[in-house]
Order: sequence, then structure tokens, then C-alpha cells
Amino acid sequence: MTAAGAGSAASARRWNGPPIGPLAVIGVGQIGGSVALAARAAGAVGEVVGWSRGASTLQRAAEAGIIDRIAPSAREAARGAAVVVLATPVLSLGALAEEIAPALRADALVIDVGSVKRTAIDAVETHVARFVGCHPLAGTERSGPDAATAELFAGRLCIICPTPRTPPDLIALAERLWSACGARPLRMDAALHDRVLGAASHLPHVAAYALSAAVGAIDAEGGETSAALRALGTTSLRDTTRIAASSPAMWRDIFLDNRAEMLPLIDRLAAAIAELRAAIAAGDGAHLDAFLDAAREARGKVVPG
Amino acid sequence: MTAAGAGSAASARRWNGPPIGPLAVIGVGQIGGSVALAARAAGAVGEVVGWSRGASTLQRAAEAGIIDRIAPSAREAARGAAVVVLATPVLSLGALAEEIAPALRADALVIDVGSVKRTAIDAVETHVARFVGCHPLAGTERSGPDAATAELFAGRLCIICPTPRTPPDLIALAERLWSACGARPLRMDAALHDRVLGAASHLPHVAAYALSAAVGAIDAEGGETSAALRALGTTSLRDTTRIAASSPAMWRDIFLDNRAEMLPLIDRLAAAIAELRAAIAAGDGAHLDAFLDAAREARGKVVPG
Repeated sequence: MTAAGAGSAASARRWNGPPIGPLAVIGVGQIGGSVALAARAAGAVGEVVGWSRGASTLQRAAEAGIIDRIAPSAREAARGAAVVVLATPVLSLGALAEEIAPALRADALVIDVGSVKRTAIDAVETHVARFVGCHPLAGTERSGPDAATAELFAGRLCIICPTPRTPPDLIALAERLWSACGARPLRMDAALHDRVLGAASHLPHVAAYALSAAVGAIDAEGGETSAALRALGTTSLRDTTRIAASSPAMWRDIFLDNRAEMLPLIDRLAAAIAELRAAIAAGDGAHLDAFLDAAREARGKVVPG
Repeated sequence: MTAAGAGSAASARRWNGPPIGPLAVIGVGQIGGSVALAARAAGAVGEVVGWSRGASTLQRAAEAGIIDRIAPSAREAARGAAVVVLATPVLSLGALAEEIAPALRADALVIDVGSVKRTAIDAVETHVARFVGCHPLAGTERSGPDAATAELFAGRLCIICPTPRTPPDLIALAERLWSACGARPLRMDAALHDRVLGAASHLPHVAAYALSAAVGAIDAEGGETSAALRALGTTSLRDTTRIAASSPAMWRDIFLDNRAEMLPLIDRLAAAIAELRAAIAAGDGAHLDAFLDAAREARGKVVPG
């Protein structure tokens, strides 16, 4: 893990020099749309061409001024672009790279924005040589082009995962681009990225979705319990499950793609819940004290502020 | 569940008439301290006398002007008070009620602020007749007198749980007092309260503490994974575990006191996690899609906004 050089420091958010050229965004959701808005606001790119699998998403992105032009296919979006952003669910990236490869300019920079890196980078590098795997730690539980903003990446880390095959000039260009978008690039090995994000992001999503499902099952039983549940609106439930409002298609792919890291992490979570349950069932206040104290202290070490 | 009468509507936040009399706060943490600050700011009470088990907490509450006078014991704090607030962990309430009972004025109003109601109300009513079980849905993950504010209850629900033994005049007085503190009183059966809060608040705390423990175990292994974990600071982990920064002693008691509701709820959470794990292990994208969609939809029904 190495911090990016001074040339891509957070202070240099505006793009220096003429725009790189046309930008192609494939998958114009919250993240892809925000890259388009931020890169153009910074003056880093020229025309923005978009393509998405959903026609209504694409139409909405055009109406909102996120893209200048709708391409008829992912391949045609990529044709002639100086920068191509792959912003579709992670399991689709390999096939997408294969599709666009024949149309890529020889000097094009291709980046992705996926939340899992090791397998996705392997899948894309098979087809595209000038590729840099990227993961901006931004995005909210909202999805779609209407959730895109030029400020989404402001001050946020963007993990850059070069491989031995990544051309060094491309790493620097990708970092300049993310800095222009307001992000703080941070280089990290892809396997380490997947392990750490598994714990810091993917596992919290498992907990939030599971908690939503459990509470939802009670709500579905109806009656006075359901009515009271809907009336209360506690902040603890709201905040703990906020990220369960995220895109199911995106998280399906992340869970599956990062399966090797996820399974042991989920086992740790299940074991912690089982330990809490056993202490509660046994009325073991001393065990609960120790568990809750340790959990609170552990959280303080990994969550800032 | 019945909404409180017009006399205790949120608009009538100021106290009408002379102060009820001296207020005793037993347990001067975030909630007890905030009742003192809010009730006095509203002009609802006169002198505020405090007692806490921890001498430093008590000293701090006095220094911060939350209480006017430190009592030498819980019983002496209650002596002569027109209103007594029991704001200690829920499992201590029965013994506390027994201790203060001999010193109570015949016309005193005793309330608690505990997060579990059925067993606590039983335990207190055994010793104190003029008692109204209350649960303000307020409080943050912070604890102690320094986390107390006069605005803590502003606009928040306060669940009022009368029993067949509760004197009707006391219910109305408790509701007036909470309204003066800015809260919106809502009457609810104690058993229903415990079932619903088990789902809406206690279970999210189980998930947040367990997730903190699981991620903490990874952090404790040290090395580059730990360093990267601490460097990232994702908002998903921060928000999902926010409530795991809460007071362990308070939550130990809540989990134990609401054990009958908690165990089946925890089983539902564990089952949801097991279902997610099985779908991920099997690479079952269709099952994941269905699960995540349903969880997101279920959340939308019980979480406002």
C-alpha cells in the first residue's frame, strides 16, 4: 500500500492542460455517472458518450446532461474514446472487456470502478492491456443516474490496484484523473484490497441485508407488532440498515465475486452472533460485559472519529 | 397503542403553571442528565438533586450544572422529590425502587427511562405504587453526563406504558412532563413495546456489536490487513456499527432483561445470515437477487424516508 505521488495530491483537483479526449462511460449509474460529471467539471475530458444495458437509465442520463451522446452498444461507446470507464456490476466486466477490445484506440486508458478487484482485474486484463483497476470508496445507498453528482468523490479515497502488467504511465494517468475528480488515490495490492474491503464494506452489507430481512419477516406478520414497528422509526434500525437500500444487482455480484474472502468473514460474524446469543440465553452478564466492551473497543480502532 | 391527548401535543413544550417541585435524578448519564436539563429548561421542576453509583459521574454532573446538589444515596436523592427519575441500567431498577420507597413523598411521581418495560415495570411496581414506565426513544451512542443535552428529546417519541395499577392522574402528569421536555408521548402496552423494540432497536444492537467483534478480530491479527483496514475508514462500516459505541453496561442489561424476545429475534438474524452464506457459497445469483431485493423492500416498509 503506497500513497500516490505529489502530482496527484488532493489539492490539485483541477485538470492541468487540455482535455485528454472523449470519455466513454459504460454503465451510467451513480458511480459511472459521477465520474462523467466530475471529470467534465474538472476539464479533464471532452465529449462524454454513454451506454447502459437499461434503455431508461441511458435515456435518463442523457436528459440529465450526464452524457452528451447515447451509443448503440458498449463497443461503439468505447470506439474513439481516450478514456473508457467500466461501471457495470463486477461479474460483467470480463465479457464487457472482450466486447469493447476490438474498438479501443491503441492509446486509450480503460478503468473500472468495481468493489472487488482481484478476479475482475484478471478478467479484464485478458482482453485489454491498457487497463488500471480502480475502486473509488464513494457512493451511497442510492443508485441510478439521478444519484450521480460531480462531488461524489470529493475527499474520498480511490484505491488503485496496478498489476505487474499495468503500464506505469497508465497508473499515473489514472491517478491524475481521479485526483481531478476530487478523490485521493491510494495504491494497494488487489488481493489485499479484496480482503480488507471484505471486512470493511462487504461484511457490513451482509449484516445490513440480513438484519433488514429479519426485521422484515416480523413486519410481514402484520398486526399490532407491524403497526408499532412502522410507527417507531428508530434511528438505530435506520442507520444499521442504511446500506441495505443499495442496488441488489451490484451487491449480488460483489458477494459472489469476493466469495473466497466473504465466506470466512461471514463465519466470523455468525460466530460472534452465536456467542452473544449463548451469553444472553445463559444469563451470563460477565460474558456479555466482556464481549460488548471488547467489541466497542475494537470498533474504535478501525472506525475513525 | 394510543396517541397521547391534545394536552401533551408537541407544540405545548413549555410547562404551564408553577414547577411541580424538586426533581431527583438517579443515574446521571446521558438520558437522566438530559431529563434534568430539559425539565428545568421548560420550567417544569425546581431544584435538581442527583445520585449515581459512580462518584466521578456525579461530580461531573454537578460541575456541568446538570444537578444542583449531590445526594449521599439514591434514597436521600428521592426524599422530598416531587418527581423521581430512575435512569440506571434496567436490571437495577427493582432493587433501586425498593431502596427509595421508604423515602418517597406520598404524592411523588416516579418514572424510569429504560429500554425494556415489562419486567422492569413489574419489578418497580412491587415497591412503588405511583410509578409510570417510560421509554424516550432518544439517546445516541455517547454516554455519561457530558453527552446530556436539553434538546435530546426534541421531537422524539416517548413510549408510555401504563398498567392496570397505574393511577390515571399519574399517566397524564408523566405525559405533560415528557411533552415539556419536547418529546411526543405515545402509550403502548409494555409487552408490545418489548417485542417491537426488540426488533427495531435491540436486534440492530446485536448486529452492530457482533459486526464490530468480527471486524475487530481481523484487525487484531495485525499486519498489512490491519493497517489497510484502519486506513480506509469506510462509511458503511462506520454507520452499520455506530450504535456499538453505546454503553456496554446498559446493553448487557437490555439484552438480558428482554431475553425472551431477543432469543427468537437473534435466531431470525442468524437464519438470514446463514441463507445469504449458503447462496454465496453455492454461487446462486438468482437466490441472492431475490433475497437482497426482498430485504431492501422490507426495509423500506419499516424505516421512514
